Amino acid sequence: MQVQAQVATEHWVLREDQQGICTLTLNRPDKFNALSAAMIAALTAHLDAIREEPTVRVVVIKANGRAFCVGHDLKEMRQANDPQRIKQLFSDCGGMMQRIEHLPQPVIASVHAVATAAGCQLVAACDLAIASESAKFAVSGINLGLFCSTPAVALSRNLGRKPALEMLLTGDFIDAATAKTYGLVNQVVAAEQLEQAVVAMAAKIAAKPPAAVSMGKQLFYQQLNQPLAEAYQLANQAITCNFYLEDTLEGVDAFLEKRPPNWQF
Amino acid sequence: MQVQAQVATEHWVLREDQQGICTLTLNRPDKFNALSAAMIAALTAHLDAIREEPTVRVVVIKANGRAFCVGHDLKEMRQANDPQRIKQLFSDCGGMMQRIEHLPQPVIASVHAVATAAGCQLVAACDLAIASESAKFAVSGINLGLFCSTPAVALSRNLGRKPALEMLLTGDFIDAATAKTYGLVNQVVAAEQLEQAVVAMAAKIAAKPPAAVSMGKQLFYQQLNQPLAEAYQLANQAITCNFYLEDTLEGVDAFLEKRPPNWQF
Amino acid sequence: MQVQAQVATEHWVLREDQQGICTLTLNRPDKFNALSAAMIAALTAHLDAIREEPTVRVVVIKANGRAFCVGHDLKEMRQANDPQRIKQLFSDCGGMMQRIEHLPQPVIASVHAVATAAGCQLVAACDLAIASESAKFAVSGINLGLFCSTPAVALSRNLGRKPALEMLLTGDFIDAATAKTYGLVNQVVAAEQLEQAVVAMAAKIAAKPPAAVSMGKQLFYQQLNQPLAEAYQLANQAITCNFYLEDTLEGVDAFLEKRPPNWQF
Repeated sequence: MQVQAQVATEHWVLREDQQGICTLTLNRPDKFNALSAAMIAALTAHLDAIREEPTVRVVVIKANGRAFCVGHDLKEMRQANDPQRIKQLFSDCGGMMQRIEHLPQPVIASVHAVATAAGCQLVAACDLAIASESAKFAVSGINLGLFCSTPAVALSRNLGRKPALEMLLTGDFIDAATAKTYGLVNQVVAAEQLEQAVVAMAAKIAAKPPAAVSMGKQLFYQQLNQPLAEAYQLANQAITCNFYLEDTLEGVDAFLEKRPPNWQF
Repeated sequence: MQVQAQVATEHWVLREDQQGICTLTLNRPDKFNALSAAMIAALTAHLDAIREEPTVRVVVIKANGRAFCVGHDLKEMRQANDPQRIKQLFSDCGGMMQRIEHLPQPVIASVHAVATAAGCQLVAACDLAIASESAKFAVSGINLGLFCSTPAVALSRNLGRKPALEMLLTGDFIDAATAKTYGLVNQVVAAEQLEQAVVAMAAKIAAKPPAAVSMGKQLFYQQLNQPLAEAYQLANQAITCNFYLEDTLEGVDAFLEKRPPNWQF
Repeated sequence: MQVQAQVATEHWVLREDQQGICTLTLNRPDKFNALSAAMIAALTAHLDAIREEPTVRVVVIKANGRAFCVGHDLKEMRQANDPQRIKQLFSDCGGMMQRIEHLPQPVIASVHAVATAAGCQLVAACDLAIASESAKFAVSGINLGLFCSTPAVALSRNLGRKPALEMLLTGDFIDAATAKTYGLVNQVVAAEQLEQAVVAMAAKIAAKPPAAVSMGKQLFYQQLNQPLAEAYQLANQAITCNFYLEDTLEGVDAFLEKRPPNWQF
């Protein structure tokens, strides 16, 4: 809680909690929400705090201003002029992205506008993403001579090889509909319906027993690259354990008795 | 054959063989073909028998009644009330699903209606799937507080991460067209054309030299998660071996001589 | 250069260089560009030469005649009649395909017509692919009793499992639009616009700093099958190193100063 308060005063990332949905808003609109060291630290601190807060069921990452996020703060990086600090910055940024996967709560990106480079990576790193029709996506570092290697890690875990390589090698933008076709976002909605669509999805997930959600999310990523037999072993363990949670037994009984569950969570 | 006869008398899974196509029909329509321990055992026994029957070239899994399969038999599981038996049940079910991948013959799911939870997993675990326009798919365990961890193993090997996670975290249904877009099924046809489409695909595969089909299927899964060089080594071995099968040499010669092959299989 | 000249005289693969774009044209139209041992050797020699030529920024693989490429030269293989030579041929062919991934320069397949078996593999093995509306794709070896095991390696790294298995088990053709939906090609254009679309994409990539392009391409494939933390470590190293290339620093500075970069490459 201490960390959270401290971050809030910095205003880089705003936090708002409502009915189990924690919304983090990138709030550096004059810089198109560029991921400065401070911004990365703020996001990291928020995620570390949220991880310990069981009242948070779902996290939404959105942004203020005309862009969702344009990636790293290149000006800051040029001023740093120190390879060690640059490497640390990329490492901190990747660490923040990995925290999203390791977070017990699902994270939904709410993308209203342009998401480029590490901004596009942030969308890819989230568990789910909903985009407005006005959103656009690019990993455009190559246009400056900086191949988006770290964004490629997240991007290539969402898209097929050829679409991912096309984006990375050309730096071209794709529109929201293409992003959905490629698997980068789950839904595309009209701009004025973005908030509503995100809240609907977040609320739906927030209404499920959180222990089942977090065990499931963890298992999902854990088994992905395992050989089939190992993946099933991990899943068998997870689902057996999940089955004997009190709220799950109640959920199953309620289903069998055709009544709403009386959940304690 | 003993096993098969015994299973048949139980009527949980009906078997019908015609011209190399073995059709297994889930036959517990009053329970929407829920995968009870007996149903899983019946499917397993059928698959184990089929594996030793070279006259079977292709397997079709379909279902009787208003649903394709609604997953595990929750009533039975609640009555068992024994963690060891529950774990064994999930393990047996996963073992059955893995048998599909390890079977020498290709397996086609013929999905005419709702497939949920382990029923959706069954579709994902098959090599191929054809769905009727009236089919629907969900991994809806999370609605009861039971994240579909074991279905996630099969699902995440067919779909991209974000669509898979959306299905697992929301429990929402997707329609047949979406299932095709996501990669869960190969074709979607009108309800009245499902049988015909499945038979057409099964017959087409049944007409190929079975040794080539089974070597190919095995190699396909074997090389999937290997590094590129290792994958090619495995494939080189498989295809060289395949090339010198008698029916393949005849197939190649017939092609070069522009005549139909005179196959012995 | 010696190798290149020698190959050129053989006319199996024509090479033309223009503004950093090296176009290799399969030139055995009377045999539908079948991949004979000589053709594989010629492609391999060209790729090995190009790898050492920094003036080549992008490679395009296209073909003369009525087909793009129909795969292996079955007549030659039957005449060889020697398992060791057959195995060597598959191994050489797979080695050529792997060279594409290992090449520092991106490779674009320009597919104007039919691509089957190892011809379809060649498209899948390229980093990018643009197809004409008249292109068609199949891994049709199974029709002769020869499952396309080596093509399966490349195909299954582009397509989902079920579409890949359907193609491999049925031998059926897919059209260009389906190839795009499945992820096998990046773009589909009218036949008369194919050359223009390929040149546009090649020129766009050729205009980026080549060191960034090649480091990025290498990193992309390197990190694909790594666990997330290892993938990010590799990417952090690559992008930090990339950032301090002279042309990249200039690219970043130019971007910050809102001027065109003055690149030295």
